[in-house]
This record gives sequence, C-alpha cells and structure tokens, in this order.
Amino acid sequence: MSDLIDFVKFNEEGLVASVAQDYRTRKVLMLAWMSRESILKTLEIGSVFYYSRSRKSLWHKGETSGQYQIVKDIFLDCDGDSILLIVDQKKGIACHTGKPSCFFRRREGVVWNES
Amino acid sequence: MSDLIDFVKFNEEGLVASVAQDYRTRKVLMLAWMSRESILKTLEIGSVFYYSRSRKSLWHKGETSGQYQIVKDIFLDCDGDSILLIVDQKKGIACHTGKPSCFFRRREGVVWNES
Repeated sequence: MSDLIDFVKFNEEGLVASVAQDYRTRKVLMLAWMSRESILKTLEIGSVFYYSRSRKSLWHKGETSGQYQIVKDIFLDCDGDSILLIVDQKKGIACHTGKPSCFFRRREGVVWNES
Repeated sequence: MSDLIDFVKFNEEGLVASVAQDYRTRKVLMLAWMSRESILKTLEIGSVFYYSRSRKSLWHKGETSGQYQIVKDIFLDCDGDSILLIVDQKKGIACHTGKPSCFFRRREGVVWNES
C-alpha cells in the first residue's frame, strides 16, 4: 500500500485532514485527522482509523461506541493534502453527541442553531 | 456577526478547516481553510472567501475563474473547529484542474485513479 501513501502530503505533524461522508444519505459526517499509520490500518481493516490529536494516538472510530465507519471509497484531492472517506456509518450516528453528523450547528442569522 | 465567530475555534495559525459541499449534487467539492476575516467576508458577501495558506492572503473563490461558491448554508461541528459550507458551485466546477470536485483521485486497489 506504500505506493498509495506516497501521494499523500502530510503536514508538519504528519497528519492529513480527512472528511467522512455517508454513502447512503450523502451527509458530511465529520472532519478528523489521519496519520500514515491510520491510513494503512484503514486500508488493512476496511473500517476507519483516525489519529486523535488530543490523545496523541491511533483511534479506531466506533471501537467504544459501535459507530464504526466501513469504507466504501477513498478519494485524494488534487493537492494530495486532503482525503475524502465515503463510508457506511454504523448506527447512523457519527458524532459523540448522538447526532447523525458532527455538523449539526446551523447558521441562522447571527446565531448557530442545533439542527 | 461577532457572536457567530466566537464559537469558532481557530488553530494556532488563526485558521479553521472548511469543507464545501454542492447543495444540488451533494458532492464534496474541496477542503480549504478560513480565517476570521474570510468567514466575515463570506457572511457579508454571500459567496465563499477562503484563506490561501500559500499566498498568505484572503482568497475570493471564483474571482479569477468565475467558479464562485454561493453560500446556501453554513454548519459548525461539535468541537467548533471545522466548518461545512453548503454551496451553489458556479459552473459546476470547484477544482483548478477543471474537475467538478477536487476529490477526483479514487483509490482502486493499490493506486489512485482519476474518476
């Protein structure tokens, strides 16, 4: 898989911004970070691994919540510095708050309202 | 608009990762960065402004190409450190390569193929 990885441009922390989108609902679910190791694990296992910047460790999404993201497709952007993960979001919930998507605060006028 | 901005958590460079999604096709178009100023300009004008890290300046998306992104909706994620822009992508093209989306390299086995 090293050929694939060679096209990915990691930032100075060794990370790449990754967006997950539900393949069924087409909802954008979340934005998180992947390391070289998390990409390789994701490719190997077929379920998304991110890198947790707060915990400074590999993070198998869904490991504690069951909210796994099964990989359907992976795209790399033109610059090689962003990844798009098309996933089957298990339980239909991506966010730790219990919302389907982490992007649930919608701008309405001058405030953010929960959607 | 300062109330809105207060909920956004900028990184140490004063930027926030922002994903644009086409409101019609639901395609994820690109991932770029916004500064406080670019968010305020986006809210004021109604067409997306990013912050170009390479040029270190405000970047009105579409200004030279006509590929403007007209804002339909803006979402903030649970952590406040990522933004989702739902846009009307003018000309149906977001990428400087002429592709509809910047995420056109699709993983197929051990290679990225243009989709």
